[in-house]
Amino acid sequence: MLIIGELINGMYSNIALALKEQNKKIIQTCALEQIAAGAEALDLSCGAASKNPLIDMPWLVETVQEVTDKTLCLDSSRPKVIEEGLKAAKNKTIINSTTADPEKLEILIPLAKKFKAKLIGLTMSAKGIPQNMDQRLELAAQILSYASENEFSAEELYLDPIVMPISVAQNQIRETLEAIHELKIISQPAPKTIIGLSNISQGLVSRGLINRTFLTMAVASGLDSAILDPKDKELMDALITAELILNKNIYCDSYLEAYRKK
Amino acid sequence: MLIIGELINGMYSNIALALKEQNKKIIQTCALEQIAAGAEALDLSCGAASKNPLIDMPWLVETVQEVTDKTLCLDSSRPKVIEEGLKAAKNKTIINSTTADPEKLEILIPLAKKFKAKLIGLTMSAKGIPQNMDQRLELAAQILSYASENEFSAEELYLDPIVMPISVAQNQIRETLEAIHELKIISQPAPKTIIGLSNISQGLVSRGLINRTFLTMAVASGLDSAILDPKDKELMDALITAELILNKNIYCDSYLEAYRKK
Repeated sequence: MLIIGELINGMYSNIALALKEQNKKIIQTCALEQIAAGAEALDLSCGAASKNPLIDMPWLVETVQEVTDKTLCLDSSRPKVIEEGLKAAKNKTIINSTTADPEKLEILIPLAKKFKAKLIGLTMSAKGIPQNMDQRLELAAQILSYASENEFSAEELYLDPIVMPISVAQNQIRETLEAIHELKIISQPAPKTIIGLSNISQGLVSRGLINRTFLTMAVASGLDSAILDPKDKELMDALITAELILNKNIYCDSYLEAYRKK
Repeated sequence: MLIIGELINGMYSNIALALKEQNKKIIQTCALEQIAAGAEALDLSCGAASKNPLIDMPWLVETVQEVTDKTLCLDSSRPKVIEEGLKAAKNKTIINSTTADPEKLEILIPLAKKFKAKLIGLTMSAKGIPQNMDQRLELAAQILSYASENEFSAEELYLDPIVMPISVAQNQIRETLEAIHELKIISQPAPKTIIGLSNISQGLVSRGLINRTFLTMAVASGLDSAILDPKDKELMDALITAELILNKNIYCDSYLEAYRKK
């Protein structure tokens, strides 16, 4: 399971401040702490507050690259911002993200190919958020079809079935879990699946419990990757244990510590 | 999800003592505590130490019935012991359990029909424990087929895909999860599925974490019932949250308390 740390995001006040003051130390500390906690890749987002994302994104990339060679996940809804990040990147990259809209795909697929980046495809479009599993699979099929026509392998794609907050669309969470299961079998080779975890508990009280319970269920459904807070120790304990149950790590009494030492 | 409390079992020293001394208070307290913690049914097992299970089982049934009308799950590998329990029962009952062996089925299916009991069918036989999902489904099919021929509805069956301890058969746990998913679709009407949860962490250190993580994954796979320790609060929190995620309870900020007050 690819764990992508979510904490370098301008929506957090410490990161917004770091961007404003061009404070490398804050960013680099946040990067190293997430890696120490188990992140294998780092999401980089300037956030809505950034006035200069075309400058901030490459600065984030360069700043993080000074301290780690982990994969960078360039997070923006604006392809130009992602392109500036890709130009600055020496580490491996993931583009976060395209939608199923042709006007997005026709820019981002060539960009991913040019920069040898993987690509996150959200199963949504300009028409909005899908309402059930079938709509998610249909949008996924549109992304896979466009990718195939443009010789971009499904294996380089991470499909995101869109996790909605329980408080907004409680009846859709089961559909999302079923979509994770089905997305693995709609094409050969299979695409990977990914979720932005924290969204499920947006605005709720028992966030930690809901996040780790949902992540465990998603892992049982075959999830390949998640963008999450790796510094949430109980969340990581649940994830390590779920992978143990799926026989991805060998059991020993100190399996939690053994995993973390890896 | 049907939660069956596992704590009235002669393998626990307090219950063994209660059986020896015919101490009703210990049994009744254990019953009421499990119900208060969320159990909707209670497993009753005399345990291997009982010298007189043919007397102890009906005594357990009568003792528990004095304080609750919850369903009783009569747990013995000896059909005669179960029959004595059924004779004493006024509450609803579940027979725990038959294997897929014809010599067991031909006694226990008529017994279940005679006493209007539900029946737990273990997907194992005298040949031993199944080694993968396919063997589990094959044994389940044998039980379903025998039940069908003898006009015992699949809906009255709880099929148990046999949870092995991680320390013994780590590679089989995924097979068990997949079996839970598949057992729901091998017959129409669908049988129910059940697991004896605690077995997964037999002899291990992080029992609570492993139990609640596995239960959450099993719920995601479609599990209908589990025999477990309802007094494990973190386990129950995980279960309530997993059911919330599957939209079985309506979200509110105090959903854990709301569930428990029900």
